[in-house]
Amino acid sequence: MAEESQKWVLMVTAQTPTNIAVIKYWGKRDETLILPVNDSISVTLDPEHLCTTTTVSVSPAFDQDRMWLNGKEISLSGGRFQSCLREIRSRATDVHDKEKGIKITKKDWEKLNVHIASYNNFPTAAGLASSAAGFACLVFALAKLMNANEDHSQLSAIARRGSGSACRSLYGGFVKWIMGKDEKGTDSLAVQLADEKHWDELVIVIAVVSSQQKETSSTTGMRDTVETSLLLQHRAKEVVPKRILKMEEAIKNRDFASFAQLACTDSNQFHAVCLDTCPPIFYMNDTSHRIISLVEKWNRAAGTPQVAYTFDAGPNAVLIARNRETAALLVQKLLFCFPPKSDADLNSFVLGDKSILKDAGVESLEAIESLPAPPEIKDPSQRHRGDVSYFICTRPGRGPVVLSDESQFLLNPETGLPK
Amino acid sequence: MAEESQKWVLMVTAQTPTNIAVIKYWGKRDETLILPVNDSISVTLDPEHLCTTTTVSVSPAFDQDRMWLNGKEISLSGGRFQSCLREIRSRATDVHDKEKGIKITKKDWEKLNVHIASYNNFPTAAGLASSAAGFACLVFALAKLMNANEDHSQLSAIARRGSGSACRSLYGGFVKWIMGKDEKGTDSLAVQLADEKHWDELVIVIAVVSSQQKETSSTTGMRDTVETSLLLQHRAKEVVPKRILKMEEAIKNRDFASFAQLACTDSNQFHAVCLDTCPPIFYMNDTSHRIISLVEKWNRAAGTPQVAYTFDAGPNAVLIARNRETAALLVQKLLFCFPPKSDADLNSFVLGDKSILKDAGVESLEAIESLPAPPEIKDPSQRHRGDVSYFICTRPGRGPVVLSDESQFLLNPETGLPK
Repeated sequence: MAEESQKWVLMVTAQTPTNIAVIKYWGKRDETLILPVNDSISVTLDPEHLCTTTTVSVSPAFDQDRMWLNGKEISLSGGRFQSCLREIRSRATDVHDKEKGIKITKKDWEKLNVHIASYNNFPTAAGLASSAAGFACLVFALAKLMNANEDHSQLSAIARRGSGSACRSLYGGFVKWIMGKDEKGTDSLAVQLADEKHWDELVIVIAVVSSQQKETSSTTGMRDTVETSLLLQHRAKEVVPKRILKMEEAIKNRDFASFAQLACTDSNQFHAVCLDTCPPIFYMNDTSHRIISLVEKWNRAAGTPQVAYTFDAGPNAVLIARNRETAALLVQKLLFCFPPKSDADLNSFVLGDKSILKDAGVESLEAIESLPAPPEIKDPSQRHRGDVSYFICTRPGRGPVVLSDESQFLLNPETGLPK
Repeated sequence: MAEESQKWVLMVTAQTPTNIAVIKYWGKRDETLILPVNDSISVTLDPEHLCTTTTVSVSPAFDQDRMWLNGKEISLSGGRFQSCLREIRSRATDVHDKEKGIKITKKDWEKLNVHIASYNNFPTAAGLASSAAGFACLVFALAKLMNANEDHSQLSAIARRGSGSACRSLYGGFVKWIMGKDEKGTDSLAVQLADEKHWDELVIVIAVVSSQQKETSSTTGMRDTVETSLLLQHRAKEVVPKRILKMEEAIKNRDFASFAQLACTDSNQFHAVCLDTCPPIFYMNDTSHRIISLVEKWNRAAGTPQVAYTFDAGPNAVLIARNRETAALLVQKLLFCFPPKSDADLNSFVLGDKSILKDAGVESLEAIESLPAPPEIKDPSQRHRGDVSYFICTRPGRGPVVLSDESQFLLNPETGLPK
C-alpha cells in the first residue's frame, strides 16, 4: 500500500444507462443469486437523458464502506450490495497510480474501505429502472477502481446479483440477458445483440404517469407471481423462448413490425401474469390503458405498427416510434390527450431531446391547446389534463463509460465525502 | 288450428334470473354452436332484484315473428334468435287451451308467428349479463307456450345457442355448465349443483361502476382471445378442470374460504387472458382495482376470506359476502370509499335488498358522510365520490318461473302488441 501517506484518496466516476425490457424478465428461479425463469431482451436508453452517475473511492482513511444515493446516506448492509462488493473485491488486482504515487496490491483491497456516491438524473423508484442503472454503475465503477479485469459480460453477472435487470445495463444498444443453466449462476449474464448505431432511427418517448412510489415492489411482486400464478411457468417455458428468437431476428433485420408486435404482446403478457398473481398485482392504471388504446388504434389504422409500447412494474408508458417523423406525430397525439396542468411550463413537461417538440410544431403551451384531436380519440372533448406528469424524449444509447471530468465527480477528491 | 276464430292470442309470461360466473366462461371452441373451451360454474342471482321478464304470444293474426326489448322493437333476424326459435319450434307439441277453445297441433307451430316482449329490471349491456337472462327467458317462455316437454337441462342447451352463459340461467342456486364433448353440442348444457336454499347465508353486493356501454363485446373479446392469447389454452386445459372440481367441493361443503379463493383467482385469471389478447382487452378500471385491493386487504387482515369478488366483461364488481353481518360491514366500507354524488338520493344509490342498509347503520346520506374510515384504506381523505353509479344488494336466487298475474304480461292479451 502507499507507504508515504495514509491521506490519499483514489476515485473513479462512471456513468451507466438504464434499460427497458422489450421481452420481459419476471420471476426468479433462485432468489439469492437472482437467476431468472426466462431470457429477456432490452433496449439501452440514451444516458444523456436517463442515467446513473456513480463515484467510487478508496482511502486508507475510510473506516467503513459508506454510500450516498442522491445525496442521502443509505445502508450498504443489504445482501445485494454486499454481494456486489464481495464479488468485485475478490476480482481486484494490483493498482499503481504513478501520478499520485499510490500502489495498492491485490491483497490490500480486502482491508480497504470504499465510499460510494450515486446520482440518478431521473426520479428513483418511479418505475424507470433506477436500480438497474444504479447497480450496473456501482459494479462498473468498482471494477475500474479495483482494476478487476473482467469483460462486460462477466461484470453483468455481478451486477445481476444487485438487481436482475442491472446486468442488461452493461451494454449499449440491444441486449440479451441469457438466463443460463448453471446452478451457481455463472452463465446467467448479458450479451450485446447490436450496438446503439445498428438501429438509430428509433425514437423513444416515456410518459411518466405517476411519480408516486409504486405499490408492489418488483422483488415482492415477482416472488408472489412465482408462488401463485398458474400461468407464469407456461409463459416462461413455452412462450418466451420462441419470442426471444423472433425478437433477435427482428432486431437484426430492423424489422419494426415484428419488433413492435413482440414488444407489445410481451408487455401485455407480463401484466397478465401479474394479474394472475394472488393477491393480483396492478401496475398499469386507466392512463396506461388509454395510452395503449391510442397506440393500438393508430397502428391498426396505419396498417402496420408505427409505435411499440411497453410497461414495466409501474404505470409509465415507454413508447418506441419507428422513426423521428412518427415520433413527432406521437408527441402531438400524446400532448393532445394528456396536456399539462395549467400552471406547468413546457420546459419541465417535456424533458430529454426537446428537438422533437419543434418537429411536432409544439413550441409553447398555447400550441398544445390548439393541437388537432387525433382520429384515434372517441371523445375529443375529454382531455386528461395532468394525468401524465411529464414526458421524456430519448433514443437507444450507449453503455457505461468512465467520466474523466472532475467537475462531474460526486465525491470530494480530497476527503472522499460527498461534495 | 282453432277453427272458430282467427282472432285468438295465446301467451305465456316468464321470469328468469341472471347469473354470475365464479369459474369463468371465456372462449368458444365452436362459434356457431357456442361451445366453450372449458366448464364454468355460476351463482344465480335473486330475480327479485335482477331478472328478465318475457311475454311470448302466438296468434294466426301475426304475419311475422316480432320482438320488443325494453319497449323498443328489435330485429329477430340474427342467427342467435333464429337458432333458439328454430330449436324450440322443432320440439313444439300439441296445445289445447280448453278455456279459450284453442287447439294447436304440432304441425301448426311451423306456420304460426310469435310476438315477444322482454324487459330487464336492470341496465342492458352494463356488464350485468342481461343477454344471459334474456335468452334463458326467451327459450323458457317459448317452450312453455309451445309445450316443448324438455327438461331444464335440455332447454339450457337451446338457450346456449342464444348466449353461452344463458344456459346457466335455467336453474336457481349454483349451476355448472358442462362444456361437453359432442361436436354438435348436444351435451353442452347446464346442471344444477345445489339449489338456492343450500347456502342461503351468502349476500351479494354489486357495485355498478359504469353504466356506459362496454368497449369490447364479450363475443368479439373472446374470439380475439382464442385467436391470439398464448395463455388461454393452458388455462382451459390445465387450470380450469382442477378448479371446477374444487369449486364443486367448496359449494357442496359451504366452504367459504375455498369458494372465495377460487372465485377471486379465477376472475383475475380471466382478466389476465383478456390482457394477454391482441389487442389487449381491459374490462376492469381503476375503480375495479380499488375494490379488489380493499377486499384483498380485508381478507388478509381477517385471516380468512370475508368477501369474494368477481368481475365479468366490464368494470362492475360482484361481491359475495360470507353472511349478512359481513355484508353490512362490506356496505359500510364501500359507501365510505365510493360515496354518491351530492345530488344523489340514497334510495336510488342502493338498490335491491335495502334492509342491509339498516344493518349497516346507514339510513341517510348524512350517515354515509360520517362513516368511519375502513382500516384497509391508505389515505382516508381520498373518497372516490361518484366512481360507483349505484349498488345492488341481492342474494342467490331461484330459477325461471311462469308468471300468471296478467298485470305482469308485457303484451296486450287481445292484440299481442306491447302494452
